[in-house]
Amino acid sequence: MRLAANNPDRTSWLHVDKNSDFPIQNIPFGVFLTRDDIITIGTRIGDTAIDLGALHQLGYFDGIPLTDDIFLQDSLNDFIADGRKTWRAVRDRIAEVFDSKNTTLKNNKSHKEIVLFRLDEIEMQLPVEVGDYTDFYSSMEHATNVGTMFRDPENALLPNWLHIPVGYHGRSSSVIPSGIPVHRPQGQTLPEGAIEPVFGPSKLVDFELEMAFITTAANDLGEPIPVDEAEEYIFGLVLLNDWSARDIQKWEYVPLGPFLAKNFATSISPWIVTLDALDPYRVEGPKPVKPQLDYLKYSGKKKSFDINLEVSIQPEGAKENIVSKSNFKYMYWNISQQLAHHTINGCPVNSGDLMGSGTISGPSPESYGSMLELTWKGEKPIKLKDGTERKFINDNDTVIMRGYCEKDGTRIGFGEVSTKLLPVFKKK
Amino acid sequence: MRLAANNPDRTSWLHVDKNSDFPIQNIPFGVFLTRDDIITIGTRIGDTAIDLGALHQLGYFDGIPLTDDIFLQDSLNDFIADGRKTWRAVRDRIAEVFDSKNTTLKNNKSHKEIVLFRLDEIEMQLPVEVGDYTDFYSSMEHATNVGTMFRDPENALLPNWLHIPVGYHGRSSSVIPSGIPVHRPQGQTLPEGAIEPVFGPSKLVDFELEMAFITTAANDLGEPIPVDEAEEYIFGLVLLNDWSARDIQKWEYVPLGPFLAKNFATSISPWIVTLDALDPYRVEGPKPVKPQLDYLKYSGKKKSFDINLEVSIQPEGAKENIVSKSNFKYMYWNISQQLAHHTINGCPVNSGDLMGSGTISGPSPESYGSMLELTWKGEKPIKLKDGTERKFINDNDTVIMRGYCEKDGTRIGFGEVSTKLLPVFKKK
Repeated sequence: MRLAANNPDRTSWLHVDKNSDFPIQNIPFGVFLTRDDIITIGTRIGDTAIDLGALHQLGYFDGIPLTDDIFLQDSLNDFIADGRKTWRAVRDRIAEVFDSKNTTLKNNKSHKEIVLFRLDEIEMQLPVEVGDYTDFYSSMEHATNVGTMFRDPENALLPNWLHIPVGYHGRSSSVIPSGIPVHRPQGQTLPEGAIEPVFGPSKLVDFELEMAFITTAANDLGEPIPVDEAEEYIFGLVLLNDWSARDIQKWEYVPLGPFLAKNFATSISPWIVTLDALDPYRVEGPKPVKPQLDYLKYSGKKKSFDINLEVSIQPEGAKENIVSKSNFKYMYWNISQQLAHHTINGCPVNSGDLMGSGTISGPSPESYGSMLELTWKGEKPIKLKDGTERKFINDNDTVIMRGYCEKDGTRIGFGEVSTKLLPVFKKK
Repeated sequence: MRLAANNPDRTSWLHVDKNSDFPIQNIPFGVFLTRDDIITIGTRIGDTAIDLGALHQLGYFDGIPLTDDIFLQDSLNDFIADGRKTWRAVRDRIAEVFDSKNTTLKNNKSHKEIVLFRLDEIEMQLPVEVGDYTDFYSSMEHATNVGTMFRDPENALLPNWLHIPVGYHGRSSSVIPSGIPVHRPQGQTLPEGAIEPVFGPSKLVDFELEMAFITTAANDLGEPIPVDEAEEYIFGLVLLNDWSARDIQKWEYVPLGPFLAKNFATSISPWIVTLDALDPYRVEGPKPVKPQLDYLKYSGKKKSFDINLEVSIQPEGAKENIVSKSNFKYMYWNISQQLAHHTINGCPVNSGDLMGSGTISGPSPESYGSMLELTWKGEKPIKLKDGTERKFINDNDTVIMRGYCEKDGTRIGFGEVSTKLLPVFKKK
């Protein structure tokens, strides 16, 4: 059954470019600061941002049970906590209000002045207050590449990998929205051949191309979420750049996993594209290589999504260079399996929790999701258009990730997550 | 210089038992639900709980710049964010109001009725909303024991351990206060000699005896906290039981660290004892075995604390059995070094963040901080008073941890963190 807001034939009275990520079939959710310095929850159609707080005050959500201040918040957490029925009702209503056939708001100039913003009039914020951030490691190609480089090419995948959607806890305090720059981290590294570590700036700062899902409040302490119910609790997805300092990581990560190599920054795209909007783009995931335990076996709808992904590097004052083209469908473990695994021991999941996919590498070298893999530990540097080379990310480079689905003439996208790497922090 | 509230000669007009953890020199902070179903921030002297919200409304904090609702909160986060100057002014004032020589509140019966509660009239809550929870691994004895058991007795400590206060991110959603029971987790394990994992209840549920410090907002993204400034940002300490499922841990933890083996529950004691109250109990920490990098070298006051710790197991309907006696002073890396390390890469720290010490094992077998070490992987079961044996924790056992400092006749304690292990969760 098709969701009403996904009707491919609907057009909007707001202008939408042919290649826009944000047709009226998308209706993502985000948080922005307006020209009047007000924080509000909003959505976007084409290049127009829509203030949902104002729209609600003007009565456009009448008949949907919503608290008065549900959109006048600095995060989406409370709205997401209201559950899937509410998300759907709100998304459907927005589609109706901006439908070409509906002239109520279209013909109300004073309402439009309050509700609509050009993109240059707003500043996107972090869409959720992240309670807990978990990062998985669910691309077989990525895990194989890393295992080949650092362990044993003959046994690149560790014994648990084909049984467990391996994951670990990240740091939520350093999750930042697109546009916030990041300083090159300092830390301990062990130089090649040395016995004692040295202190200094990381020399191997890398991106990791990921997507992440954002949850609603799902379960109490002790209670697992069954794999086939998992999507009930997933609000939507964003692009995620899991910034990584490879030299710090190598020295610190045994035995408890990555820590300072990762927690200096994690960037996400500011518009959460709902799972509902992605529904038409479901595809089968990779076939299991080994039988999976019952709690990870799913049925019903396809649980993978065909989302084209790309990564660019833009040196200061120079052109963008696409360095990777991958796809979310390559993930060996899907988001339902990840959430079922995360809660099988009773771990509680709250509204606003962020769950990263892990680096999304595809089968071909052009589809690898990190510089570590693309340049094979720096052995094969990438040539940029300005004549320079990159093994990893240089100071003042901007890393830009984009993602979109496309099918039967409708394109649903995520916009971008763009982050500039600044030199090491200096105290003023 | 001695802090005013630490004056050992002060007595209170509230009754305090000789062996109480909570003399007027302690003045910890917590959050409780009162008999009238109101959540408030409070403190405790002897066995009397004190409603700081009510005390503030009645004017007892006049002259201290505090917002009206600073104590009428369901967490200490905002109060802690006010910073050390405020914590000290409030703690000093509480000491004055309850000083034997001060009769203002003592003689005001109607005020006392509003402000004071017996412990059986209140229900302790989680003291902070934990933004991020980090767990360190800072006891050399514990790391050595684990390395000896699972890797190589000749090289028990990994090469990075003497250079890095090793830590990893935990899950904040499953941090619970003393008194909340926990279900035995289910998950994947690899039976001895098997090639494929099985699913079922963990057979090796364990406690880990830890302490944890709680921070105030400390730094912006990118900015490290120098080791000698770290204590400025540490509000206080609690006891922490880092529940662990050893069989799940063994199968899942390579290469990204413990995940489901730990995130089913982490219990903490409900009263935060301030770093100020612990000031008289400072001691030298262990001498560094190897030189440490500059950012970890500290000066000034001693940075370790002499806190006696013990763990009891109480089977259902039976007596308590003390199974471990340890001390916080055994930590190789102190809390200042942990916080400096955590932020050296610019990772931001917020008010209410929780940072666990890692299992605190001492040099002798009786001082080991986990059943894994106490029974040496189950090879040497512990005999309990009721005639039963324990290799790990059984269903319906309660694990109780206690801690206190004592010097020159003054005892400052933490009370307890007590958690019952329930059988595997069953859906109703």
